Amino acid sequence: MQIVIIGSGNVAFHLAKAFVLNNIPLAQIFGRNEKDLEKIALELQIPYSTEKLEDADLYIICVSDNSVESVSTIITKKDCLVAHTSGSLPKEILVGEYRKASFYPLQTFSKSKALDYKKIPFFIETDDEKDKQVLFELAGKVSENVMESSHEKRKYIHLTAIFACNFVNHLFSRAKEISDSQEIPFDYFLPIIDETVQKIHEIDPKLAQTGPAVRNDIRVLELHEKLLKDESLEIYKTMNHSIKEMYGL
Amino acid sequence: MQIVIIGSGNVAFHLAKAFVLNNIPLAQIFGRNEKDLEKIALELQIPYSTEKLEDADLYIICVSDNSVESVSTIITKKDCLVAHTSGSLPKEILVGEYRKASFYPLQTFSKSKALDYKKIPFFIETDDEKDKQVLFELAGKVSENVMESSHEKRKYIHLTAIFACNFVNHLFSRAKEISDSQEIPFDYFLPIIDETVQKIHEIDPKLAQTGPAVRNDIRVLELHEKLLKDESLEIYKTMNHSIKEMYGL
Repeated sequence: MQIVIIGSGNVAFHLAKAFVLNNIPLAQIFGRNEKDLEKIALELQIPYSTEKLEDADLYIICVSDNSVESVSTIITKKDCLVAHTSGSLPKEILVGEYRKASFYPLQTFSKSKALDYKKIPFFIETDDEKDKQVLFELAGKVSENVMESSHEKRKYIHLTAIFACNFVNHLFSRAKEISDSQEIPFDYFLPIIDETVQKIHEIDPKLAQTGPAVRNDIRVLELHEKLLKDESLEIYKTMNHSIKEMYGL
Repeated sequence: MQIVIIGSGNVAFHLAKAFVLNNIPLAQIFGRNEKDLEKIALELQIPYSTEKLEDADLYIICVSDNSVESVSTIITKKDCLVAHTSGSLPKEILVGEYRKASFYPLQTFSKSKALDYKKIPFFIETDDEKDKQVLFELAGKVSENVMESSHEKRKYIHLTAIFACNFVNHLFSRAKEISDSQEIPFDYFLPIIDETVQKIHEIDPKLAQTGPAVRNDIRVLELHEKLLKDESLEIYKTMNHSIKEMYGL
């Protein structure tokens, strides 16, 4: 099977690298940014082009959400499979007469950082059963976690990641505001944060909950509310209310 | 200096272990639970007792918050320093005519798990300068991060940890509810969660924020609100409101 990756950003680089490391040959990496392409091509020893798209059985589009549609129009071949790697777009965003798919790796990619590809989940959606098998086999060579996912399901995957990653990061920002206000280096909290996250690798977060809300320690909760204001106070109240609801307090 | 640790739980064990590993001799580990004490004493090769408290210069009380006061009364010696390890109690909770201190290691301790003690921050409060020096020197042998902290400051340390750990864990619980509802294994999100946390070891969380709120992507925000209800919806709105406020959106 001839595979071409389209794009020269972080997703394109890591996907190409994961393929190469798992002995999946790539026919080409194609994109606009010659400098980035050349760098990836050199590192991974694969052909690249900014001009002539190679003939292939599978094209994987690794570009930003708002470019997927326009980039998909450059593929004029009909008898081939085209997949995008976006978590939020339906496969129908792809414009062309080829077969369509979504091939979504759930991870935050940054170019410099080495990643354990085996652990990255891949979510796959296709038009037909045969294409599904092809993409499952491909993703299965890279990762241990491959599953089917409709566009509807991907919405919930995205939402889960917003709670578990985007909002978590914002809590770190608000926490840092508090420690900054007392001139306590936020780095001091990294070991306990690491431990908090390490814990949910082993047990259900619901069983790992600690803090004044789950103890229903009203004295401490009231004391804290006096130390906070504005958005942080709102977060404090909302989170504690939600914790109490979850544990029937 | 003769040091006695009082308690047989996780904090007592890890503190005793950190001392022993850093060649700080312990005169005794004292407590009520003989079985636990014996286990710790055997592992760390230190004397223990459930009955006769050894004469010492420094007693470190490692018991749960609501036992600190009563346990402190067993120390009848006057010319000594007594420290508790609670993050939330004032040192004045200690009942006796000895000198008082707070010696607070910021970490979640579980007995089985090995910890890098060098990274655990210690927060210290004493009545006088000499005791402060003694405890700084002691903590400094175990950890790279030792700082002074009034009871007032400890309140904010605790509050920071609530945002960065307790609330973060609750977000994991709510995230897991969402992924469970779609029969997506929550384990699939662990790599992206790990990466989210790894990132704040390198950059300010405020600079690492991603997601629809910081992009002010109203279409996605409205779509998500339709997928959520009750407490999760409240969290979604509160967090996004706070993100928008932080970035002036």
